[in-house]
Amino acid sequence: MPSLLLDHLKCQKNIESMSRKAAGQNLTLRPHCKTHQSAEIASWFRPFGIHSLTVSSFPMARYFAEAGWDDILVAFPFHPGEMESLIRLSELCQLSILIDSPAALPFLHHIPCRISFYIDIDTGYGRTGVRTENPDLIEQILVKASDNPQLKFQGFYCHAGHSYKAGSRAELDQIHQKALHDLKKLKEQFKQYDPKLLYGDTPNCSIQEEFGEIDELTPGNFVFYDLVQYALGACKLEDIAVAMECHVAGRYPAGERIVIHGGAIHFSKESLVLDGSPIFGQLVPSGDEGWSIRSETCYLTSVSQEHGVLESCAELINEVNIGEKLLFLPVHSCLTSNLMGEYRTLEGKRITSFNT
Amino acid sequence: MPSLLLDHLKCQKNIESMSRKAAGQNLTLRPHCKTHQSAEIASWFRPFGIHSLTVSSFPMARYFAEAGWDDILVAFPFHPGEMESLIRLSELCQLSILIDSPAALPFLHHIPCRISFYIDIDTGYGRTGVRTENPDLIEQILVKASDNPQLKFQGFYCHAGHSYKAGSRAELDQIHQKALHDLKKLKEQFKQYDPKLLYGDTPNCSIQEEFGEIDELTPGNFVFYDLVQYALGACKLEDIAVAMECHVAGRYPAGERIVIHGGAIHFSKESLVLDGSPIFGQLVPSGDEGWSIRSETCYLTSVSQEHGVLESCAELINEVNIGEKLLFLPVHSCLTSNLMGEYRTLEGKRITSFNT
Repeated sequence: MPSLLLDHLKCQKNIESMSRKAAGQNLTLRPHCKTHQSAEIASWFRPFGIHSLTVSSFPMARYFAEAGWDDILVAFPFHPGEMESLIRLSELCQLSILIDSPAALPFLHHIPCRISFYIDIDTGYGRTGVRTENPDLIEQILVKASDNPQLKFQGFYCHAGHSYKAGSRAELDQIHQKALHDLKKLKEQFKQYDPKLLYGDTPNCSIQEEFGEIDELTPGNFVFYDLVQYALGACKLEDIAVAMECHVAGRYPAGERIVIHGGAIHFSKESLVLDGSPIFGQLVPSGDEGWSIRSETCYLTSVSQEHGVLESCAELINEVNIGEKLLFLPVHSCLTSNLMGEYRTLEGKRITSFNT
Repeated sequence: MPSLLLDHLKCQKNIESMSRKAAGQNLTLRPHCKTHQSAEIASWFRPFGIHSLTVSSFPMARYFAEAGWDDILVAFPFHPGEMESLIRLSELCQLSILIDSPAALPFLHHIPCRISFYIDIDTGYGRTGVRTENPDLIEQILVKASDNPQLKFQGFYCHAGHSYKAGSRAELDQIHQKALHDLKKLKEQFKQYDPKLLYGDTPNCSIQEEFGEIDELTPGNFVFYDLVQYALGACKLEDIAVAMECHVAGRYPAGERIVIHGGAIHFSKESLVLDGSPIFGQLVPSGDEGWSIRSETCYLTSVSQEHGVLESCAELINEVNIGEKLLFLPVHSCLTSNLMGEYRTLEGKRITSFNT
């Protein structure tokens, strides 16, 4: 069966690098855990003074609270389907939630514990959040929330996820500058609340050097990085800290094709389009110490449920045998990690996660 | 959190329908379990005299063997990475494996138990298997395998997965006819071995009425069906037996957008392209008895890790509230089931699976 290999030195270097970048600018790093989903990996942030986390769901928050983390933000708009989880969790840790509509507030009327909330802000991504052009809606949320003594407003949260669609560095800079500008304006407009500003997708947190009025950074993917981040210029191929290890299941020289045991239920169906064709992973040569990066590229060109196919890897097909293991950098490490549910370090140690 | 609802009456109807179709033509049905991956759902085949299964991995085979199934085919080319699993499993059940290269046989030299094998045949799909144009390779496999008294050749297996790429009924028929023709020819060429013919993807098993010399059908997806099968004409929308139940997390009237709690880690990233745009699920109105099908369509138009977005559902946006539950037919039920890991019937009963 396929395994997800973790080069823990690369991972710890990524963690150290982002932690030092944040500290160097007096920013708090509140790393998002949705990529690794692992208490052990989260613990690698502790030596850098990190004491707060971001997660994407209540069950994931509970997992990290039980692992001893006290300050957790569930960065997904709160809805009443999560009411029971919220109450249980608020007894375990200092919980923060996201709100982006006054309609969510009545459900929180009778909560037994005090919880913090951030207002989710949309600076152009167009997924969730109050658009910065709509401060009246923010005002409505704040007025309505002030009726509830259990709710404490902490500030504004922004995930500028349109950075993933940026076609150039200039476009990425523009997205970043607009977000900083919009958030600064909100900080001024609502200064009587002394709002904190939370910000940060991995591309911007990795590439940018100036964060203006921001107080906390919340990137997640940078712990592992992946081919999407590489394509955006957010990391080097050498920084990618996870690789899928898959057995060769078949060689088909007439079709110039190798088939591996590793498919959509291992890698996910996330693809990256290169030269007009989707790819699902990039082959990397294995070595004594993990894997290396080579200049010739060979890609996983399609995946079905259990199978992965490498086409047009002319030389490789004469070199590999059935049963041999090949290593692949993943396109989207969050989805691959979520599917694999655990890691194996290069030293052979098993690292579990929320999904194990 | 999202749940995967199972309409067990629809599912049992699909099972009954395929079982009767096979029986009516004196074909054995050896259903593939990679879609549902559930011992309880597999047990629904028992009343129809089904006693053999197809699975896609050794761990999945073990799960069904432990649930009391004795005759199991692992329909994935055997490679030596699975040697230990094969030995353990061969003690638990009557195990069959797939072989498509003489290179796989040396690894089976010293197996302690007798196992059956089928030769995987490629009639045009171009993933795994020996191409039918290459009977010499089949001969090589058979000669080499005859040296090993533990290996018993059973016949030929063909998954004509290019049926999923068929653009029309005529193309699907052509794929089917070629597969039947090629397999019949192999049965004649190798008649001294009295080979059985195993065949069947869900589109062909659902749509076709004639199966020529085939002995066993091995479809899997038909237990649930999905939007891909509907698009191929393999089922009606009313036959789809699973639906994702997701909470509304946000309404964004200015952006004509609804955001649900249900994303790539629930639905998968599998999409279906309709009118040039990808969709990830289709909204269905919930009712007292599960869900119904309506003529107006509203689609899940994008998914990120935890979020799903519905765009341009003009009327709906005025009808739904935060926290309300919406139901969606999945694009690819195999991947959605694999991610969700369990089912909830319309009566509220939890059904577990290999992934629970």
